[in-house]
Amino acid sequence: MTEFQLIDLFTRALPCAGEGVVVGVGDDAAVLRAPRGEVLCATVDALVEGVHFDRRFTPEDVGWKALAVNLSDLAAMGARPLWALIALAVTGREPPARLARIARGLGACARRHGLAVAGGNVTRARDLSLTVTVLGAAGPRHVLRRAGARPGDVLLVSGTIGDAALGRAPDAPPALAARQRRPAPRLALGRGLAAIASAAIDVSDGLVQDLGHLCDASGTGATVRLEDLPLSPAYRRAVRRSPDRWGAALGGGEDYELLVAVPPGRVRAALAAARRARTPLTAVGTVDRASGLRLRGPEGALHPAVRGHDHLAGIRAL
Amino acid sequence: MTEFQLIDLFTRALPCAGEGVVVGVGDDAAVLRAPRGEVLCATVDALVEGVHFDRRFTPEDVGWKALAVNLSDLAAMGARPLWALIALAVTGREPPARLARIARGLGACARRHGLAVAGGNVTRARDLSLTVTVLGAAGPRHVLRRAGARPGDVLLVSGTIGDAALGRAPDAPPALAARQRRPAPRLALGRGLAAIASAAIDVSDGLVQDLGHLCDASGTGATVRLEDLPLSPAYRRAVRRSPDRWGAALGGGEDYELLVAVPPGRVRAALAAARRARTPLTAVGTVDRASGLRLRGPEGALHPAVRGHDHLAGIRAL
Repeated sequence: MTEFQLIDLFTRALPCAGEGVVVGVGDDAAVLRAPRGEVLCATVDALVEGVHFDRRFTPEDVGWKALAVNLSDLAAMGARPLWALIALAVTGREPPARLARIARGLGACARRHGLAVAGGNVTRARDLSLTVTVLGAAGPRHVLRRAGARPGDVLLVSGTIGDAALGRAPDAPPALAARQRRPAPRLALGRGLAAIASAAIDVSDGLVQDLGHLCDASGTGATVRLEDLPLSPAYRRAVRRSPDRWGAALGGGEDYELLVAVPPGRVRAALAAARRARTPLTAVGTVDRASGLRLRGPEGALHPAVRGHDHLAGIRAL
Repeated sequence: MTEFQLIDLFTRALPCAGEGVVVGVGDDAAVLRAPRGEVLCATVDALVEGVHFDRRFTPEDVGWKALAVNLSDLAAMGARPLWALIALAVTGREPPARLARIARGLGACARRHGLAVAGGNVTRARDLSLTVTVLGAAGPRHVLRRAGARPGDVLLVSGTIGDAALGRAPDAPPALAARQRRPAPRLALGRGLAAIASAAIDVSDGLVQDLGHLCDASGTGATVRLEDLPLSPAYRRAVRRSPDRWGAALGGGEDYELLVAVPPGRVRAALAAARRARTPLTAVGTVDRASGLRLRGPEGALHPAVRGHDHLAGIRAL
């Protein structure tokens, strides 16, 4: 398969036209018209075979997830997606049908979220990988940032957490495995909360680590009530006999849920926005003036903090 | 080295603030304000160890080239660079000093061209690679495209071609090797020609292949006069005893020069723009109504066409 055949395969599978795309795939660069009165949000993320996905992922899962993890970052900014640029690395050993199915997964996620693929690149490498850059738009006064949380704000988290981490186990129940392979970016919720929340982050490295980022950026601490963490029925079943009920929920990573801080007076508005977005949103704690993170167990006892998911795990120490 | 140490290393080496950067590195996504009255140009390219660079590249070369090849695409659109997002993949075996030097090369190229690094990502992979997305701005009526060349237009090429291809040889003279490792994106020239040229492309796959893309997009053919190709003294010395004087210039690739089509009445203006940009620009042929590419040799004879540089060379055929 030549470079141009591969580009053609992807171009045919992807939605390449859309809002603001003046010149799409096929020139030296895409030409894009930014929407007036909004700011742009831009983020990039990579999915590498053997690191972020394995043979248990269908090719469609790979394509879907490569785009979805980026869209989760846009969701955390309260942005709506506009365009993606997709850099594909192939080993040359992939059957063309596998590449076509990856393109199909990308296309399905792009169409679901109204995004146009404006450009890309293909190259050769020893690992199959997809590096996706996504651009979105947000109201300039309502961009959600990690900084901005204030002591007294209520912490809320969307959906359920820990499922994706448990979904990595070889014998994981399908409901948990699906959470790991097909994350659902919380775009509608992010936009609904843009004018309501004081700070937001997407939970990709585990609740503890990402809450730590939010607190660091805001100059605050936080308390989380373990009993209030939103856990799915499948999660509860999976940890029933485990000595560590909360480990995966607190430190597992890849949840791609939103963690937001909301001033107490706006919590009702936040919950109403979540209902409109058809996305569960659960209060799990509070933002504190005192730095550090407190995990409060069922009897009020403090739980030891948990290390988050390090995307470079295995990289040798300096 | 942890993920966050690595991000910190790059963030300190790179210019992260600049025009339109509202929120830079460190949040879920960068927040960018697009300049009013201009369109955006966006492109992505990857540099993979063992495919696009080897141990003869200094780490600074790797960083420089990863950004420069993208800037060349912006140059071909007549755009000015604004922002980059950098996705880095590391094997974990790189000495931290090597990574720091790659960051320094990236930083040098970014500063030279007035670009801010607005975001990025780090991951683990079996090959070290850099996937760079670059965003620029251009006047909406003066974006240079591949389409737009008209029969009778004069074809001009910047700088000299073929040097980078010869620079790949293990025993290449330093002048040629430098062209391969440190391409100079022709940004000033591209902007100078934006209101003058009828079509443009950057010569990354070899003159014949990229001229073919320009002709295909424009619905034209072309004639190139081999005697007029701009060849450097080092190139001429290197091919003196070779039976194929033009092969590297026509099909070698990685020149990162601009190939433009200019209506005959604007050729003087184009040459004046090139002088202002301090970039050589040489007429090498004409755009024809008849499709196909004609390479005219010294005595007027037609030369057989040459295959271009395939970035997936080695990928098995379908």
